[in-house]
Amino acid sequence: MTVPGDPTAMPNAFRGAADDMLPVRTAALIARRDDLLGSAYRLFYRRPLEFVRGEGCYLHAADGTAYLDAYNNVAAVGHGNPAVAAAVARQFATLNTHTRYLDAVVLDYAGRLLATFPADLSRILFTCSGSEANDLGLRIAQAHTGARGVIVTANAYHGVTAATAAISPALGPHRGACDHVRVVRPPLASEGARGEERFVEEVERAILSLRGDGHGVAALLCDTIFSTDGVLPTLPGLTQAVAMARAAGGLYFADEVQAGFGRIGSPFWGFRRHGPVPDLVSMGKPMGNGYPVAGLVVRPEVLERFGRDNRYFNTFGGSPVAAAAAMATLEQIQETGFLEQVDRAGDYLRSSLRLLAMHHANIRDVRGAGLFVGVEIAGTEGEAERIVNFMAEHRVLISATGPQGNVLKIRPPLIFRMQEADRLIGTLDAALRAGG
Amino acid sequence: MTVPGDPTAMPNAFRGAADDMLPVRTAALIARRDDLLGSAYRLFYRRPLEFVRGEGCYLHAADGTAYLDAYNNVAAVGHGNPAVAAAVARQFATLNTHTRYLDAVVLDYAGRLLATFPADLSRILFTCSGSEANDLGLRIAQAHTGARGVIVTANAYHGVTAATAAISPALGPHRGACDHVRVVRPPLASEGARGEERFVEEVERAILSLRGDGHGVAALLCDTIFSTDGVLPTLPGLTQAVAMARAAGGLYFADEVQAGFGRIGSPFWGFRRHGPVPDLVSMGKPMGNGYPVAGLVVRPEVLERFGRDNRYFNTFGGSPVAAAAAMATLEQIQETGFLEQVDRAGDYLRSSLRLLAMHHANIRDVRGAGLFVGVEIAGTEGEAERIVNFMAEHRVLISATGPQGNVLKIRPPLIFRMQEADRLIGTLDAALRAGG
Repeated sequence: MTVPGDPTAMPNAFRGAADDMLPVRTAALIARRDDLLGSAYRLFYRRPLEFVRGEGCYLHAADGTAYLDAYNNVAAVGHGNPAVAAAVARQFATLNTHTRYLDAVVLDYAGRLLATFPADLSRILFTCSGSEANDLGLRIAQAHTGARGVIVTANAYHGVTAATAAISPALGPHRGACDHVRVVRPPLASEGARGEERFVEEVERAILSLRGDGHGVAALLCDTIFSTDGVLPTLPGLTQAVAMARAAGGLYFADEVQAGFGRIGSPFWGFRRHGPVPDLVSMGKPMGNGYPVAGLVVRPEVLERFGRDNRYFNTFGGSPVAAAAAMATLEQIQETGFLEQVDRAGDYLRSSLRLLAMHHANIRDVRGAGLFVGVEIAGTEGEAERIVNFMAEHRVLISATGPQGNVLKIRPPLIFRMQEADRLIGTLDAALRAGG
Repeated sequence: MTVPGDPTAMPNAFRGAADDMLPVRTAALIARRDDLLGSAYRLFYRRPLEFVRGEGCYLHAADGTAYLDAYNNVAAVGHGNPAVAAAVARQFATLNTHTRYLDAVVLDYAGRLLATFPADLSRILFTCSGSEANDLGLRIAQAHTGARGVIVTANAYHGVTAATAAISPALGPHRGACDHVRVVRPPLASEGARGEERFVEEVERAILSLRGDGHGVAALLCDTIFSTDGVLPTLPGLTQAVAMARAAGGLYFADEVQAGFGRIGSPFWGFRRHGPVPDLVSMGKPMGNGYPVAGLVVRPEVLERFGRDNRYFNTFGGSPVAAAAAMATLEQIQETGFLEQVDRAGDYLRSSLRLLAMHHANIRDVRGAGLFVGVEIAGTEGEAERIVNFMAEHRVLISATGPQGNVLKIRPPLIFRMQEADRLIGTLDAALRAGG
């Protein structure tokens, strides 16, 4: 639920509660947290949750209660994954330096990762977070094009640095100076064929406006699953939009922080489902299954100008430990049959949700790709959030997203299987029934 | 050596070599690296180094050669520190979530860390890198003051995000749009008392200029050891500069990424040596002894406006693993006698360097605090770099810094002792003698 008039509203945020509504320990932790971390942080859920252990698809509370995690996309190969944990432990105890020394660990990883891309996308720079990767990508795109302007979707989220917050309308109106940013509304299913036409027109207007204001077009930047725009697995008109941005001198920059590394199944990268090959690709979250590692893949010609005029160094980015964590994660994602299993689990989950929709009229749409699924909920403004909280109280973790906060966001670890999907469906069914 | 006309010049950068100058494996790794990571990365040394293991104060090459590390400030409690490695291994295998759930690990750490600050500096936000911490601090300072302008020292380095690169003159002229940035030259020893006066005048002019151009003053931002400005342990006039910035509505923002966590010895934070208590303090590098964790400490009133208008979330920042790594590091730094030992080792190192200076006229100055030491070298432009490379070839790692690249940067792990200092001095002596 977005709170009208509250620019900082976040779907599924804890917004305070009478102390007697919360367990004593929860209230005490919240008070300590407010005191130590302050006012800019948000918690999830009406009754915020505390976990002490993670294993596979489950997060465990202190009292031993297991929550099925159908939300967190970082632990892609499972919470506490033993192979990643072992790789991190081994490399952290052995050597942890940086990219100003030669290091075969990071090069081995870079080579293996770049092999998952089309041939022109042949350079990688390492960062710690998706925000840093998008921020660096913008700098590179602006250096290459000599332009500043960026086109993003209307409820996009691309990061929390000053430069990436400015291109993240999902963060609200106080996100920073954004005169160089133009937003375009993705086509809605409800618009039919007209949606695509309108979207392309908006891209055209954005380009004209950026040129008219002297910014020029540096990039059309797309989260390739359009997560905060409501989880949009396809975007009619995108191919045309990319062509128009390129004709205007701009680059196509794919933000794969959400969709990448097999989240959307066997295509591996979200952009492969949409068609156009990007000039820059950012990635992060699941890259090291929880170890802070992210990166930016770029065409050499696009990197050239930036590399000539600037030097890039990130103390922790591309360290041997980051590379070891990322390698252990990638090896598992690339195991034979792993991504096909993601496809099957995603298909099963969406099919089951569509069956459920036959019993619940307020499921307006079920969409997604691989194990990134959006379920659009009709009804009163708080309905999606009620469902999310009901499910948390019944030990299944999901969240909500979209411009109206009415899209259930289901994004479990990639090792999610039919039995977990069945449990999620059963709990969602109960949540929908409980709403009357 | 800074290369005239090369804006991307970095002291002690590898700038290419005939292949037959390099060992075969080194040349092959460099070629692979250029091919995979591209043109924006830099390597250290005329003959770039590869390490495969780190232990205590030593980095080991594949052939078993041990290099005394007197440069890397990340592994503050030693390379491969067993307690930090064990904490990371344990927590990574147990639970690694994020700050949208409640988590006692991160709160325990936040409480312990904040106890090292004056009482008003009572809120912490977690990031992955010092760049992210400085970037966030700028956003907060700008939200609080309603101003955009930033004053930094003439060769400052504060990060690689778009916003922090813009305030990092050390990165060269292509660092980004910086009409809101004013630089002030720190007093030089050679200027005598006049230096302080000039510095204060420059701060005054910077304030007037920022106000005149409508930017206003958001912050005076100082690396509290002024590392890239040439390692300046004191900055005459700083107290007055802070007062002037505050009188103009600005904040005092201390960048402790280099100086913090006991690097400068028992004062623990660099700002404590200078006097004024900052409004914001960023930190990073040694915080988790190599685990990517960084943070921003801020006065609650300064955070308030940002927290009201914005929300802050960093996927990996403040995770239980980041907190566990940082706690294991902090516990060791806070062990009884640890920082006093840093003081003693630093005093011994500087005394020994001053003795050495009596035999070598081209040591122009020895300065620093704790185990952050700068040795200013006279002579031809490449002399500091020649020394750095001679020492690397004799298995002692240091680097060079400063606007002219003529200051040896000595910044060993905090567990550096007299025997290591003696080896460093002996090698430096040989390097100076070899220069004739």
